[in-house]
Amino acid sequence: MKKVAVILKVAIIGAGSAVFWLSLTRDFCTMKSAPGSTITLVDIDKERLDAVYQLGSRYIKDLGVDIKLEKTQNRHEAMKEADFVVNTAMPGGHEHQEAMRAVGIKHGYYMGIDNAEHNFVWDYFTILGFKQYKLALDIAKDMEEICPDAWLMQTANPIFEVTTLLRRHSKIKAAGFCPGYHAVHHLMFVTGISPAETDFQVAGFNHCIYLTRFKNRETGEDLYPAIDRWAKNDAPELWKNHDLGLWTETLSPAAVDMYKIYGRYPIGDTARCFSWKYHYDLETAKRWYGEIGGTDSELGLQMCLDRFQGNVDRMFRLLEDPKMDLTREIRPAKGNDEFSDFIDAVSLGEKKRLVLNIPNDGTLSQFSEDLSIEVPVNIVDGKLHPEKVDSFPSRLLNFVLRPRVLRMEWALEAFESGDKEVLVENLIRDPRTKSEEQAREAIEEILSLPLNADMKAHYK
Amino acid sequence: MKKVAVILKVAIIGAGSAVFWLSLTRDFCTMKSAPGSTITLVDIDKERLDAVYQLGSRYIKDLGVDIKLEKTQNRHEAMKEADFVVNTAMPGGHEHQEAMRAVGIKHGYYMGIDNAEHNFVWDYFTILGFKQYKLALDIAKDMEEICPDAWLMQTANPIFEVTTLLRRHSKIKAAGFCPGYHAVHHLMFVTGISPAETDFQVAGFNHCIYLTRFKNRETGEDLYPAIDRWAKNDAPELWKNHDLGLWTETLSPAAVDMYKIYGRYPIGDTARCFSWKYHYDLETAKRWYGEIGGTDSELGLQMCLDRFQGNVDRMFRLLEDPKMDLTREIRPAKGNDEFSDFIDAVSLGEKKRLVLNIPNDGTLSQFSEDLSIEVPVNIVDGKLHPEKVDSFPSRLLNFVLRPRVLRMEWALEAFESGDKEVLVENLIRDPRTKSEEQAREAIEEILSLPLNADMKAHYK
Repeated sequence: MKKVAVILKVAIIGAGSAVFWLSLTRDFCTMKSAPGSTITLVDIDKERLDAVYQLGSRYIKDLGVDIKLEKTQNRHEAMKEADFVVNTAMPGGHEHQEAMRAVGIKHGYYMGIDNAEHNFVWDYFTILGFKQYKLALDIAKDMEEICPDAWLMQTANPIFEVTTLLRRHSKIKAAGFCPGYHAVHHLMFVTGISPAETDFQVAGFNHCIYLTRFKNRETGEDLYPAIDRWAKNDAPELWKNHDLGLWTETLSPAAVDMYKIYGRYPIGDTARCFSWKYHYDLETAKRWYGEIGGTDSELGLQMCLDRFQGNVDRMFRLLEDPKMDLTREIRPAKGNDEFSDFIDAVSLGEKKRLVLNIPNDGTLSQFSEDLSIEVPVNIVDGKLHPEKVDSFPSRLLNFVLRPRVLRMEWALEAFESGDKEVLVENLIRDPRTKSEEQAREAIEEILSLPLNADMKAHYK
Repeated sequence: MKKVAVILKVAIIGAGSAVFWLSLTRDFCTMKSAPGSTITLVDIDKERLDAVYQLGSRYIKDLGVDIKLEKTQNRHEAMKEADFVVNTAMPGGHEHQEAMRAVGIKHGYYMGIDNAEHNFVWDYFTILGFKQYKLALDIAKDMEEICPDAWLMQTANPIFEVTTLLRRHSKIKAAGFCPGYHAVHHLMFVTGISPAETDFQVAGFNHCIYLTRFKNRETGEDLYPAIDRWAKNDAPELWKNHDLGLWTETLSPAAVDMYKIYGRYPIGDTARCFSWKYHYDLETAKRWYGEIGGTDSELGLQMCLDRFQGNVDRMFRLLEDPKMDLTREIRPAKGNDEFSDFIDAVSLGEKKRLVLNIPNDGTLSQFSEDLSIEVPVNIVDGKLHPEKVDSFPSRLLNFVLRPRVLRMEWALEAFESGDKEVLVENLIRDPRTKSEEQAREAIEEILSLPLNADMKAHYK
C-alpha cells in the first residue's frame, strides 16, 4: 500500500507552545500528506492561538501549498473527523512549573522536588505531573467518543509517564514523540562515522535510552570501539574548553562515565537523567557537563527559559512585519521530523523508521507489558512494527532501567490513587528529605499554590 | 511416608555462634530425628568450639538421648555423609561488622553504610556482605562434591542475598531460616485472636514479609478488622509507656504507619527495614519504635551486642559449673524451632508448615524466578510445597518489594562482578552521600581494614 495523496485532518492541541510552535508549523505544512488536508490549531491562550494561526496562514500562502488551516479554543471541535490529534500542551506553562520549583527549593529541594534521581530534566514533572496526566487522559477519553480511530501523538512531557498512563487507561492508539534520540548523530559526528553507513538501535524508556546496537551497515562490524577511541583520545580535548552548551549531554563526561560503568552508551537526554553523582550542586554539574553545568543546572534552566521566551518574541516580531517572506524565516526541515514522518508513514504508507514511545506489549521482554517503551519502530503499510532488541545487561537493568520504571510507578500510583500520602512517600524517597515534616510541608505548600487548585482537589 | 526413626548426620558450621549456640544446641538435641544421629560441630574458633562441644555433650547426657556429638575445625570432615549442613557462621564476627560500621560513620553514614533504605537491620550487611557470600558459595561448592544430596540450611544473614546467590550459582538444595515471622503471634496476642483459630499467611522476602492472609480458620472471616481496631483503640495506650524493647517492631507505630499506607501488615523484622522516614536519627527512631529507638538505633545496637556477649558469658559460666543440670538451664523448645522441625519433616516425613526462604521458581508470579522468597511451605512426605500467595497490591510492590529486590541486586552485582566501581555505585544511591569523593573514600577505607584483606583482593 502506498497512497499518493490523502485528505487528512490533524488537530494540534497546545499549538501556541513556545517550544514547539515553529517546528510544528514547519513540519505539518511541509509533510507529503499536507496538500488537501485540514490542520486545526487548538490553544486555550487566545493571543498565542491567534498569533500562530496568522503566521501559519501566511506560511501556507508563502509556501503555496493547499492546506486548510483552522483555529479553535475548543478541543472537541477540533477532534471531529480528526485522523491525528497532537498533544503538545503544557497546562499552566513554565510559569506554573517555576512556581512549584520555587516552593521546592524553599523547602530544601535543589532545583525543585521533581528534579530527582533518574529524572533531572528540569521541565519533566512526574510527581507533580497532575495537569499533564489529567489532560492526556481527558483528551484520550474525548477521542474515544469523537474520533476513536485517530492516533494520539503525545509530544508534551513527561512522555514516559503519560504514554504509560494512556496504555493502561485508554484504547486510543497513542505514540510518544521525543527528538532526543537524534543525538546519536552527535556521537557519529565526533567519532567520524557516517550515518548512512551505520546501523544503530537505541532502546529503553523516554529520556532513558541506550545504544543497544552500533554497527557498520555493510560489514556488520561493531562500531563501539570507535566510541572507546574517541572517549580516550579526543573527548578530553573537547571537554577542555568547557562550553558544551544546551542539549549536548551525549558528548559530556557524564555520558562517558555512565557508559564506562554500565556498558551501553546513553543517548540524548539520557545523560541528563541519571544519578546525583552528576548533580549534587552547580560545581559538580560543571565538572560533568561543562561550563554551564548542563541543561538542568540553574544556569542551563535560565538559558532554556530565555530561549523559549525568544521563540515567543520571535513569533510576535514576525507578526509585526506582514510583508516578510516566512519561507525564508521558517526553513524547511532537515529530515528529522518525526511528527510529519509519522503521519506520512501512517497515512500514505511511506516506509519509515522512527524511534517512538509505544506500548511494550512484549517487545522488551525484561519489562512488564503495560509500560511505554522507547524503541525503533518500522512503519510499513501504515502499521507499526517495533524492532527486536537485545536483552539489557543486568547492571544497566538493575541500577538504571528498573529504578527508572519505579520512579514512574511511584508518580502514577500517587496520581491514580489521588492519595496525598503517596505524594509524601514519593518525597520520602528523595535523598534531600531530612524529615517527614519537610516532605509534608513542601507538598502542602505546593498544593496550596493558586495555580494548583485542581491538583489540590484531586489529592485527598 | 512416615518413618519412626532415621540415622542422620547434621553438620553445624559456625556452631560457636553467640547468637545461636543455645537455641541450636537445644533444638538439634531434642528433635524427633535426633536419637541415633550424629551432630558435628564446626567452628574455626577453637575456644568457642570446645566450649559448645563440652556443653553439648553434657546436655545430651543430662537429656539421656542417644546422639553422637563430634567437633572439628575442618568443615570438609563434617560434610562427609552429612544429610543436613547448617550454615550459621558469621566470618569475622561482630568485631568485623563494628569495625566496618565505624568507618562508615566516620565518613558520614549514620549507623554504617549498610544500614540503608529497605534494610536497617544493623547486622544485615549486604553491600559489605563479601565474607558471607563467599562462605555460602564455598560451602555449597564443597557440598556438591562431598554431600550433593544434603540440604544446606542457611541461618546466617543476609538470608535474602545469600539464598538468592545459592539459587543462582549452586545446584545444592538450600533453604533460609529466619524466626522473624513468629512475630505474627505478637499481633494475635494484642488483638486477642487465638493462634489455633487463625489461618495466616506471610509472604515476600526475608525481613520484608507482609501479612497476605489473616482469617478465621473455621469461618473464613477476615481478621484484619481486629488489627484496625487494635491500631485505633489500643495501640496508642501501648505506645504511651515507650518501652517496646528489642525485636518488637511488629507492634510499633512504624508498623502501623506502614500498614496504613501500604495496605498489608508488616511482620517481624519487616518494620525495621523500610524507609528513612523512621530512621533519620535517634529522635525520629524513638518516635516510631519507642524509648530505645528500636533494635537498630545506636541504643538498640548496644543492647543487642550486650545480650550476645551475655550469651557467650553464659556459655563459659555454665562450663565452670560441671555439676549443674543443663536441662534446667537449656529448656526444651516451645514449638517454634524451624531448624529441627525442618529436619524432622524432611527426614521422618512429619507433616509441617514452616515459613522458609526458598527459590521463587514461579511461586510469586510478580517476581522473577531466580530470586529467593520467604513464604509458607508445607512439607509433606519430605517434599516442600510452597503455598500459593495472592498478588501484592501495586503500591506495596512498587514502593517496598521491588525496591528491596533492587537493593539485593545491587549488592550481588558488586560481589559477582568484583568491580569496585559497583560498590561505589551502591553508595552513590545512598541519600547520605553528598559527593562522589565521600563514597569513594568510605569504600577505600573499609576495604583497607586489616580484616578485609580478602574483600580488598576481590574488588578490583
